Amino acid sequence: MLPLEGIKVIDLTRVLSGPYCTMILGDFGAEIIKIETPGTGDDSRAYGPYQNGESAYYMSINRNKKSITIDTRNPKGCDLVREMIAKADMVVENFKPGTMEKLGMGYEDLIKINPELIYVACSGFGHTGPFSKRPAYDAIVQAMGGIMSITGQGPGEYTRVGASVGDITAGLFSALGAILALYEKQKTGKGQKVDVAMLDCQVAILENAIARYCVSGEIPQPKGNRHASLTPFEDFTCKDGEKVMIAIGNNGLWKKFLTVADRPELYEDPRFAQNKDRTGNYEIIKPILDEIFLMKTGQEWYDALVEAGVPVTFVSTIDKVVTNDQVLARNMILEVEQPKAGLFKMANTPIKMSRTQGGLRTPAPLLGADTETVLKEFLGKTEEEIENLKNEQIL
Amino acid sequence: MLPLEGIKVIDLTRVLSGPYCTMILGDFGAEIIKIETPGTGDDSRAYGPYQNGESAYYMSINRNKKSITIDTRNPKGCDLVREMIAKADMVVENFKPGTMEKLGMGYEDLIKINPELIYVACSGFGHTGPFSKRPAYDAIVQAMGGIMSITGQGPGEYTRVGASVGDITAGLFSALGAILALYEKQKTGKGQKVDVAMLDCQVAILENAIARYCVSGEIPQPKGNRHASLTPFEDFTCKDGEKVMIAIGNNGLWKKFLTVADRPELYEDPRFAQNKDRTGNYEIIKPILDEIFLMKTGQEWYDALVEAGVPVTFVSTIDKVVTNDQVLARNMILEVEQPKAGLFKMANTPIKMSRTQGGLRTPAPLLGADTETVLKEFLGKTEEEIENLKNEQIL
Repeated sequence: MLPLEGIKVIDLTRVLSGPYCTMILGDFGAEIIKIETPGTGDDSRAYGPYQNGESAYYMSINRNKKSITIDTRNPKGCDLVREMIAKADMVVENFKPGTMEKLGMGYEDLIKINPELIYVACSGFGHTGPFSKRPAYDAIVQAMGGIMSITGQGPGEYTRVGASVGDITAGLFSALGAILALYEKQKTGKGQKVDVAMLDCQVAILENAIARYCVSGEIPQPKGNRHASLTPFEDFTCKDGEKVMIAIGNNGLWKKFLTVADRPELYEDPRFAQNKDRTGNYEIIKPILDEIFLMKTGQEWYDALVEAGVPVTFVSTIDKVVTNDQVLARNMILEVEQPKAGLFKMANTPIKMSRTQGGLRTPAPLLGADTETVLKEFLGKTEEEIENLKNEQIL
Repeated sequence: MLPLEGIKVIDLTRVLSGPYCTMILGDFGAEIIKIETPGTGDDSRAYGPYQNGESAYYMSINRNKKSITIDTRNPKGCDLVREMIAKADMVVENFKPGTMEKLGMGYEDLIKINPELIYVACSGFGHTGPFSKRPAYDAIVQAMGGIMSITGQGPGEYTRVGASVGDITAGLFSALGAILALYEKQKTGKGQKVDVAMLDCQVAILENAIARYCVSGEIPQPKGNRHASLTPFEDFTCKDGEKVMIAIGNNGLWKKFLTVADRPELYEDPRFAQNKDRTGNYEIIKPILDEIFLMKTGQEWYDALVEAGVPVTFVSTIDKVVTNDQVLARNMILEVEQPKAGLFKMANTPIKMSRTQGGLRTPAPLLGADTETVLKEFLGKTEEEIENLKNEQIL
């Protein structure tokens, strides 16, 4: 039995941060009832590319969820959602703060009908503070939160991370909060509200940039792909244009590398004797290394350095990632038969548990696929009641 | 009472991925007993910059932990660690796979002395698969895992994320696995092994890059700071060299922006009428926008656009992050009195819980500060036994 089996989650989230959180909960056994707008559903259903008319974006992060369409712009639709929440363990939402309150479904409203509810809110700036009501965008929080200012090829060349880490880390921290609340409730019987902000999460993942700034007074800037203090420790372009990354952390590896490179004399060169020399003479050693790497193709370098025990990898484009031997051995690429779309690939959960392994149970649902089933099984509605709801255009 | 109060964790982790995980557990109440090498301790104690001789890196991610020095290169040291593990709920380690087995402390060894132990392993490539025994480096997994191939100013300009997201996301997923295992054990009484790989986590955070590639056949490349389909949605340089990021997601915001920019005629321009036109004519609109932004300073743009309700931010360097009104209102910057180092700033937990809020309980410890206390309270050692351990150079 999976860890979260038996936990019922009403999922009002859309697009990425919230759905990423509820995907983790669903991966490990929770029943995720995803409320979607009739006709259009989660906004991400409109994001291409498409496979047989179904959105790849939507399918990649909405597995293990049931889709029920309810019109929450209709007060009777909200009544229906509230009926469901009354019977649930958890609500997860990622609306702009204030939205749920307008619908009569803020935390204070909901604990009147379900006193020990766990309410998980994931928003751009949080449910408190002067920016609380601002709309959330991944690019805005990446910019405001500092990570862009330390990512790039050099000082001032601020670069956005190409995956929406603003949304995704918020999804991760929200899942952490959700499971901590569940764990605590198992002991005390009490619920609470979890309030996670994308901006806060950006601050939390800056590693030691804050400490470095506060201690040294130097404002951290992008440093390209180099390691802060180890050399050589970056990517190089090979004869065939491929890029490989090497990580030479000590002199033993430096020697092995130079043997593969057929440049043993460089090991005796006092300018590069120790790591601090190599780092200090970076401007001298870099062109030498650039030249060395142009001697072989990417595959030749990779094979030879792996054989020699020197840490190396291709700077992998996505095609290389999905065919990587280790990635496949770890079962990280799921191949799923999606309704309508057909065979579809997505990343699996990286949380591997020896006894209660989570992962794919059901594919991402078509819009409203589970509306009737959920109304019958979760709320005990009759066929007639469901018909009425349809006629009133609530579903 | 905090959620994880009463949970005893033996922490064998070093540097970043593992310590980040155990910091989360400690933030929410677990007792973290950090085993460090006598004399040197966690490798990160040697990473600068320093404040009064103490490492800023170490201090920023090791709060809420107790430091005990035990020499695990000495078999008697391992015996002592095993004694502690026998009485603990959880072990967390981030060694290269095989290391714990060599010390007689692999999962299979430990469940002989503590059958329901939760064992959390965080490694570069995981405890299974052909790359399992390779050493873990953040740069290597960022390169191998694909995120570098979609981050950068343009095709082929692969850029490493400036924070060690390879380590940090692994720390997050490890914490998720740890708490899921704790939750499950609360129900069943059974432990298990959690095996998280940095590489797997990179694959899991690629957002929809995998789906996009598999559906369209196009290999995703870096796209600079632009949004994939919305325009304008990126950063611009202002009169004073500051960079601001704007996020114009719809025509309402486009109109407001043009009013602030004093360029109302552009709203009537058919080339830029709808978002798809602006995106389609990016090469034409970009220089116009560049010119517009040079008309005001960063602060002028920020103030005017916030007033108008247009999503905007500075592309914040770290100094702006730690003084940001919202960041401070959310209590995201902790000011801690560190032993020896003095007053020190670090990021707080972004997981805000209404009833059982976690955060700072004790500052990052000096090396071995808790050795005697832990031996007495946790293992019931006498003064004499402790003296003997010292004489045998185990501590």
